[in-house]
Amino acid sequence: MDYKKRQTELRSLLDSHHLEVLLVTHAPNVRYLCGFTGSAGALLVSEAGSMFFTDGRYTAQAREEVNAARVVIARKAPLLAVAEHLAKQKKRTKAVRIGIEAEHLTVAERSRLVRLLPLPLRLRDTSSLVEQLRMVKDADEVKLIRDAALSGARLFDRALEAIHPGIKETEVAGVMEYAARVAGTEEMSFPTIIASGRRSALPHGRASTAEIPRSGFVVCDFGVILAGYCSDRTRTVHVGRPEGREREVYDTVREAQQAGIEAVRPDIAVEEVDRAARRVLKERGLAKYFTHSTGHGVGLEIHEMPRVAAGQHEVLRPGMVITIEPGVYIPGHLGVRIEDMVLVTEHGREVLAPGSTELVTI
Amino acid sequence: MDYKKRQTELRSLLDSHHLEVLLVTHAPNVRYLCGFTGSAGALLVSEAGSMFFTDGRYTAQAREEVNAARVVIARKAPLLAVAEHLAKQKKRTKAVRIGIEAEHLTVAERSRLVRLLPLPLRLRDTSSLVEQLRMVKDADEVKLIRDAALSGARLFDRALEAIHPGIKETEVAGVMEYAARVAGTEEMSFPTIIASGRRSALPHGRASTAEIPRSGFVVCDFGVILAGYCSDRTRTVHVGRPEGREREVYDTVREAQQAGIEAVRPDIAVEEVDRAARRVLKERGLAKYFTHSTGHGVGLEIHEMPRVAAGQHEVLRPGMVITIEPGVYIPGHLGVRIEDMVLVTEHGREVLAPGSTELVTI
Repeated sequence: MDYKKRQTELRSLLDSHHLEVLLVTHAPNVRYLCGFTGSAGALLVSEAGSMFFTDGRYTAQAREEVNAARVVIARKAPLLAVAEHLAKQKKRTKAVRIGIEAEHLTVAERSRLVRLLPLPLRLRDTSSLVEQLRMVKDADEVKLIRDAALSGARLFDRALEAIHPGIKETEVAGVMEYAARVAGTEEMSFPTIIASGRRSALPHGRASTAEIPRSGFVVCDFGVILAGYCSDRTRTVHVGRPEGREREVYDTVREAQQAGIEAVRPDIAVEEVDRAARRVLKERGLAKYFTHSTGHGVGLEIHEMPRVAAGQHEVLRPGMVITIEPGVYIPGHLGVRIEDMVLVTEHGREVLAPGSTELVTI
Repeated sequence: MDYKKRQTELRSLLDSHHLEVLLVTHAPNVRYLCGFTGSAGALLVSEAGSMFFTDGRYTAQAREEVNAARVVIARKAPLLAVAEHLAKQKKRTKAVRIGIEAEHLTVAERSRLVRLLPLPLRLRDTSSLVEQLRMVKDADEVKLIRDAALSGARLFDRALEAIHPGIKETEVAGVMEYAARVAGTEEMSFPTIIASGRRSALPHGRASTAEIPRSGFVVCDFGVILAGYCSDRTRTVHVGRPEGREREVYDTVREAQQAGIEAVRPDIAVEEVDRAARRVLKERGLAKYFTHSTGHGVGLEIHEMPRVAAGQHEVLRPGMVITIEPGVYIPGHLGVRIEDMVLVTEHGREVLAPGSTELVTI
């Protein structure tokens, strides 16, 4: 990973935002900029260089992992150590503007900082500076994301073996998660969704103790974290023979997903991708049952920028990785979602871990 | 669950903090006060009653789960809906002080609120108001926590079957997590720690792709979430025959843990419990290798108040549930930790899911 390059890009962003310093506290951002994978750390980025603050629990880990920053092991909370370090620099006469990550720092953390900082230092709220950089993945990241996508995709085969009427949703999830662990997964990228029968109509139907019914859809939405990077994939299967209406809903969602994928290319606004998928559902009168956005970025976090949704003007660039995951949810009745991860390439797109989306019946 | 009673207790706290309203946004606090288990919701508690705000994705779930509050399904982010609701009340002439949960609300969320609120409304930072109530568990909660503790404890038997030289730490974790899933677990309460050989010296050694070595300690720290409540337990086993020094470290940690447990009773300050455990390690010259606190509260969250640590004056009361988990970590060499959950009772304590702490060799 080229941490130096990432920090250099961040420094030019700081410049254009008239900030002398950025205090990075959001763990995935810290990891992106210097490689530290622990939970308690803060990175101070300025023109003069970067300093990483953590506490005694992470001494060995920080020395091993942190790149392109001086490591400070503090005897107190890292954020307090940062404040004291900044306070010591007060000889400066000119005002220093310190950016904080307003979407992540809590009100209480900010208050503690302010209490310790002498005046010419001023805190300025910033939003998504590092997240902007993280949107476009570099070659090292694309490789890791592809690995995670492939590893995650294999879990669906385990689900197909496990699903049968009467097995609990949590047990299906357990079979998949066990396979992930055997493959070396650090953690699932989110709580596995196994939503069967009427529960399939819940877009966020985490595996419950409900038993898979004799007939109906089973939405399986699952992902792994491998070397820090997340995968995200959904397949919907049908237990028993699907009725005409079910088949129709499935085929329409499948077509919508395909249309979304085909819309992905450099220079298109994400809202256009959303529209392409939604249009197919609209034509069949199903758009009102598609109650969420078409997708989202994936990387060190399971939900990253950009949001692939109406009203979002972000333009796709090569190296972005997004999900395309339209769904139809008819409350109290049924739900279908199909999702793949898609890499934006120089000339179009690459579906990561491509695999059939034809309806599987069990 | 007696949500009304909890809210009544919170209202008297508001009164003593000179607040007319509390805006509760931290999900476990929202769940505690009204039963909603989703992630996007905000509860507004005032003398006049409580209102719960969520968005369209949670319509059915909110109507089913929310108690003792009026449900508002918003077309925008719940926090914005809250602000608009508050703004509409501005006919009031007297200033209204609205408490926010400063440890949880982000700087950006606070700014968005402030932008929408007309003057006589003033935001006031609050800290741990609901968390204070949550420290003492009621009878319903104790039952659920005991169930979670028992269910979590059983996973250690699976670990004992799985651990052998050459198996990956992640696979051991996978075996345990699969058993948890079969038992209906919603989610593990934290990433399972399987830290073997030299990695046992890492207090937070999440299961990695490292293989269990031919000889050495394996720290297993694991927990489940069952009906919303967390379990937390650690056992350390030895692969191969332990040497004299290893045996000595193990026995000392075991004795320290026992001393910590025996110190638990109503009216004792938590720092005394910490001291009781730490003293045993001190007497054998091992205190410098015990680099974290002795324990923490457990409930809807894996880490809750009180912290069982030096300098913490919180006094134990019947109904509190804390962990007692001293450890010794000799960097680059070995680590041992033993942990149980302990309920404070009227006259002493009850170890939840009691089980042997004798050294198991594999």
